[in-house]
Amino acid sequence: MMPRLFFDRDAAGQQHLTIDGEQGHHFARVLRVRPGEQAAMVFNGSAYLAEVESVDSKAGTVAVRILQSLPPHEPAARVYLVQGLAKGDKVEDIVQRCTEVGVAGVLVCATARSVVQLDERKAAAKIDRWRRIAAEAASQSQRDVIPSVDFAGTGSQVTQWLERLQPDLLLLLDEDETATGLKHALHNPGGRQAGLAGRPPVIAIAVGPEGGWDETERMRFRDEFQAVSVSLGPRILRTQTAGQTALSAILYEYGELGGESGCRP
Amino acid sequence: MMPRLFFDRDAAGQQHLTIDGEQGHHFARVLRVRPGEQAAMVFNGSAYLAEVESVDSKAGTVAVRILQSLPPHEPAARVYLVQGLAKGDKVEDIVQRCTEVGVAGVLVCATARSVVQLDERKAAAKIDRWRRIAAEAASQSQRDVIPSVDFAGTGSQVTQWLERLQPDLLLLLDEDETATGLKHALHNPGGRQAGLAGRPPVIAIAVGPEGGWDETERMRFRDEFQAVSVSLGPRILRTQTAGQTALSAILYEYGELGGESGCRP
Repeated sequence: MMPRLFFDRDAAGQQHLTIDGEQGHHFARVLRVRPGEQAAMVFNGSAYLAEVESVDSKAGTVAVRILQSLPPHEPAARVYLVQGLAKGDKVEDIVQRCTEVGVAGVLVCATARSVVQLDERKAAAKIDRWRRIAAEAASQSQRDVIPSVDFAGTGSQVTQWLERLQPDLLLLLDEDETATGLKHALHNPGGRQAGLAGRPPVIAIAVGPEGGWDETERMRFRDEFQAVSVSLGPRILRTQTAGQTALSAILYEYGELGGESGCRP
Repeated sequence: MMPRLFFDRDAAGQQHLTIDGEQGHHFARVLRVRPGEQAAMVFNGSAYLAEVESVDSKAGTVAVRILQSLPPHEPAARVYLVQGLAKGDKVEDIVQRCTEVGVAGVLVCATARSVVQLDERKAAAKIDRWRRIAAEAASQSQRDVIPSVDFAGTGSQVTQWLERLQPDLLLLLDEDETATGLKHALHNPGGRQAGLAGRPPVIAIAVGPEGGWDETERMRFRDEFQAVSVSLGPRILRTQTAGQTALSAILYEYGELGGESGCRP
């Protein structure tokens, strides 16, 4: 499979680009790319087919030529995951799978019932690792954007993250008997989504850790962000299965998982 | 969480039952259940809340009393997975996750591009292991049925399995540019599903191994079962992500993943 590389810069209107700095060094001296090699290169969310023109391995720079635009691979509907910190390598697995399926970003948060505790040093190392996994999965699954991955150590950090995001709809996945069905919640959105009018939605899904959210956390989601408790049906999903399942269903609902139009864009 | 136990027998109309044989032995002598303990007990697909009345640990029998019926947890739409044999413990993971989400059965099949080869002895051990994983996941996720897990070592065994199943629709997950979108395929079914008329569908999803299906395999699915090549959109999913994603979308489409009716049944 053709490599897919992400750059934090614009390429609009340019035909020739020089890659320098850390990435130039990486391509020229670590990957040892050669003139004539092709790769998908993604500049600030826009993907192009590009060809290496010349390599200066001493300077650590690579000159590339843009050959053509590539069709967009990102869903218009932006679905974010708020994931309660879970044990072992579950979060790694969740970040990887949800990136493939098309998550816009993930907030991992310490919760009252999380078994694992992360101090500041450990959290920083974990965030680095989760971001690396998201970047690799974004490349492999041929996305145009690397999903954001953040960590909230406290409830007020969760609140801040959601205040910045301003989701149209916050869905609290719930085994609670009173929860409404996911389809019903998407077809009959209340709250902020009432003003949505024709633009693709921004939706956040909150998935608790193994033991679920506690009552204080639920209340905060409901009081501050009008969270809707939704059920994925009568079968009980583990925390590492729930997010991907809900994400898949929501992207399907909005035609982002092989839609009505038939062919790939 | 209350234990959930599966029995290969009927309980319709009965209030008192004696569990003997291997399961009686297991409950009486291994789990050492005690009078008064409650469990969800599933008899041939129907779940009940039951209470242990007495235990004869010498004879290995347990007498139970049915307290009440439990609401059904099975999707009416039956979605099966035909999964190309993949490396490592991927199939284990696929069986576990798809069981939680609600798969009706899984056929793991040796394919032209499968890296792993299973001789008869190894295959038998693997099938045992996959079935054990399905049973455990069915219990944990509170299903009423343990999904079937089978293995096909040859193409003609795949054909036989599909001939027995007679799916209304066989969906071949495909990265092919000509594939139709999943939603389009479900909303405009051709072939056998034309005669579906009001009953819940039987759908099979075919997911290739890491290297995908080869042309002979694709042709067989198309020629013998009118398989429809479908795309899950422009992002490329790994074999261990694709099945669960498609299953989630299809069950959602048919209202089986938290539907319009709102509350859990």
